[in-house]
Amino acid sequence: MTVAMYPGRFDPVTNGHIDIVDRSSKLFDHVIIAVAKGNEESNLFSAEERATMFKESTTKYKNVSVQTFDGLTIDIARKSKVDVLIRGLRAVTDFTTEFDMALMNRDMERKIESIFFITSLGNLFLSASRVRELASYGVSVDQYVPKTVAKMLNKKFN
Amino acid sequence: MTVAMYPGRFDPVTNGHIDIVDRSSKLFDHVIIAVAKGNEESNLFSAEERATMFKESTTKYKNVSVQTFDGLTIDIARKSKVDVLIRGLRAVTDFTTEFDMALMNRDMERKIESIFFITSLGNLFLSASRVRELASYGVSVDQYVPKTVAKMLNKKFN
Amino acid sequence: MTVAMYPGRFDPVTNGHIDIVDRSSKLFDHVIIAVAKGNEESNLFSAEERATMFKESTTKYKNVSVQTFDGLTIDIARKSKVDVLIRGLRAVTDFTTEFDMALMNRDMERKIESIFFITSLGNLFLSASRVRELASYGVSVDQYVPKTVAKMLNKKFN
Amino acid sequence: MTVAMYPGRFDPVTNGHIDIVDRSSKLFDHVIIAVAKGNEESNLFSAEERATMFKESTTKYKNVSVQTFDGLTIDIARKSKVDVLIRGLRAVTDFTTEFDMALMNRDMERKIESIFFITSLGNLFLSASRVRELASYGVSVDQYVPKTVAKMLNKKFN
Amino acid sequence: MTVAMYPGRFDPVTNGHIDIVDRSSKLFDHVIIAVAKGNEESNLFSAEERATMFKESTTKYKNVSVQTFDGLTIDIARKSKVDVLIRGLRAVTDFTTEFDMALMNRDMERKIESIFFITSLGNLFLSASRVRELASYGVSVDQYVPKTVAKMLNKKFN
Amino acid sequence: MTVAMYPGRFDPVTNGHIDIVDRSSKLFDHVIIAVAKGNEESNLFSAEERATMFKESTTKYKNVSVQTFDGLTIDIARKSKVDVLIRGLRAVTDFTTEFDMALMNRDMERKIESIFFITSLGNLFLSASRVRELASYGVSVDQYVPKTVAKMLNKKFN
Repeated sequence: MTVAMYPGRFDPVTNGHIDIVDRSSKLFDHVIIAVAKGNEESNLFSAEERATMFKESTTKYKNVSVQTFDGLTIDIARKSKVDVLIRGLRAVTDFTTEFDMALMNRDMERKIESIFFITSLGNLFLSASRVRELASYGVSVDQYVPKTVAKMLNKKFN
Repeated sequence: MTVAMYPGRFDPVTNGHIDIVDRSSKLFDHVIIAVAKGNEESNLFSAEERATMFKESTTKYKNVSVQTFDGLTIDIARKSKVDVLIRGLRAVTDFTTEFDMALMNRDMERKIESIFFITSLGNLFLSASRVRELASYGVSVDQYVPKTVAKMLNKKFN
Repeated sequence: MTVAMYPGRFDPVTNGHIDIVDRSSKLFDHVIIAVAKGNEESNLFSAEERATMFKESTTKYKNVSVQTFDGLTIDIARKSKVDVLIRGLRAVTDFTTEFDMALMNRDMERKIESIFFITSLGNLFLSASRVRELASYGVSVDQYVPKTVAKMLNKKFN
Repeated sequence: MTVAMYPGRFDPVTNGHIDIVDRSSKLFDHVIIAVAKGNEESNLFSAEERATMFKESTTKYKNVSVQTFDGLTIDIARKSKVDVLIRGLRAVTDFTTEFDMALMNRDMERKIESIFFITSLGNLFLSASRVRELASYGVSVDQYVPKTVAKMLNKKFN
Repeated sequence: MTVAMYPGRFDPVTNGHIDIVDRSSKLFDHVIIAVAKGNEESNLFSAEERATMFKESTTKYKNVSVQTFDGLTIDIARKSKVDVLIRGLRAVTDFTTEFDMALMNRDMERKIESIFFITSLGNLFLSASRVRELASYGVSVDQYVPKTVAKMLNKKFN
Repeated sequence: MTVAMYPGRFDPVTNGHIDIVDRSSKLFDHVIIAVAKGNEESNLFSAEERATMFKESTTKYKNVSVQTFDGLTIDIARKSKVDVLIRGLRAVTDFTTEFDMALMNRDMERKIESIFFITSLGNLFLSASRVRELASYGVSVDQYVPKTVAKMLNKKFN
């Protein structure tokens, strides 16, 4: 059995994130979405809210679970007996950051692999920070995020 | 059951290629190494020789097989009922080529996924073309390729 | 009146090229598509064939014309009294080549500007070389090129 | 008639910005410089000051106007009935950010185009943030900014 | 006699930094490590602490000295009668920043050269910010930093 | 005494190459320009011609010598007891190639260092291949190459 983990801030969850989960869930026996708590003040949504978003948007995937975590990704991956870390790549700038991170994670834990998906064409320009920016200006982001997230963003900014 | 395919020219097989096979074989039920025939004149080794190299260097992997193919990667992947294509990324320049290819493959066949591994640190600078160049100058490439490949390169250039 | 020139090899014309013409034709008074002859042996279609493709695919644009040329782009641009050169950018690797070219063109002729469009999302992975490759394997490229080009490719490879 | 908009923070205006205005003003009937208000605390100069800088440095261009705006660029562009957004590219890192932005803007409003100029050689290394840094250390930036900006920077830091 | 300067924040000093000093000390008669004071609040260690780290980790190099500085790198380099500035490049993203900086430094002072080393393979993924992050989570960074730095990090976070 | 080697094809020598020699000659006791023979058929000028170009263009540098070589750069560097290899970086695409090469050279010979200069602003877009292209079309390249090279190009193409 192969267990994958998809770590991130997901502030908020976008269609791009859901797409990665969708594709991962077909390749691996179990996919754990790991929501990084991070500095609560610098996030728009609390870790709990972000986990809830993901749970409500992924109910149809039987082999997907969601959890929050604090600390280093590689530590939580180790504790969760994960085989592989999953990341999406949108562009070259993503690549260089992810490249370093993957090499360091590998240096710290040989047994956990990192693999990368390339974001689907329709989501290439989509980032959580851009979604936050649009929503903060009252622009509809319905086409970029799951329904549950759109609602939570509306509440936040109205 | 998840079937992965690792396509390429592999002219010749390097330790970097073996490393990707090693890592893939742990994540997927079966890994098919697919050696692209390509234009025989522009290759140093024939497709058969390249397939042999890979077979002899991967005997210890029970879930790995090797085949040659002609034509489009996505076509052979479809015929072989592959779930996922595997590629190694060494650097940013690799990334942009792979990025395009992955997007086009996805456009042609939604059901086949592409994922990327980042080359291990020790193999980052290793490419088949550089190995060919070194070998052509009579420089030992023993530390960069499997034993069987080193022998075949020696025969070729002596 | 602003005259734009869109230079390239266009071997063959793709939907990506047509898209750039479409967008340019809205911003500039006249758009000259300039098909570079180049080395006839290294091209799949002759310059005349490539110009014909473009003409037949752009009949609906009243302010677009097509011509072939030999030699330096900046020279033909100067002779045609062009104000601005147009190029499409698909990715970072395109960017660095275009960057150099734009700087040198500017060094040679201050009065001619270069501007860049970013390829539409649906055409991001589309390149003439990939279309040639697909067609050479007998794969349908109908969704990637204008009808007239699809026909000419079919004739070429059958 | 083609109306172009050149949006940005311009904190402060540099010779690089003036150069883009100069080149745009030759290609388009009207160029609107749109100064983004942004978070006033994170800017060195107020939006009004930045607009004034630009007005005083572009008096010789009869088809250039300056305005400030709040909110999304694409919204102000729509309201101002703009045909094309203009951006300068200095380097590869600029490119990836601009690439995303252009794709998202296009997704939100098909009728507004984005085009890119490559910064002139002499301004390649010039950025507003570097100018701020130099000025804050009391270093003369006279060769990097218009006269009026040099004066305002002097006042700010003395 | 050729005098080199290696400027940076070094917050904290990593094995990657020591490696650059080691390699520079073989090529140049004297190497001055220049620790930028920067904004004390945004640094983990004070400039004095960072200078001490470097001194204690480079005692075996007879032609290396350490100093702190405030202000522009190019100014301190001029005052110290330096011939060449030294920087390490880890990846493409480093490159673009360093590229701009080198061009501007050259514009301000023709007589001071900038040269670049490529980080050793084992340190490629190593950055001061990542070390700070690991240490803040209580993860051992002994293999990434000199002993004296490991001790100071331990003290800081316990 | 520090000996530097500047290896390359230099087909032909450009002002960009001369600039790197000029800058290197100030930092190192001796600079050996090493002209790679390469495949004579794929070069415009013979190795001897290219070496002559460089000699005639660098007579004023007392600590610069020119030689031709065949085989691997790292081998000739070793034989010439070189301390450091010098390369110029024009752009990001150069960087990734040079990055790999430097890492492999270092893997093969620890005692020889590689360092990089960033091309001067005025030469950023200048490459030997572009000079060949311009000259082949009869365009004057006098402002891009040393006088002696301009003459040899004229002879070649007239």
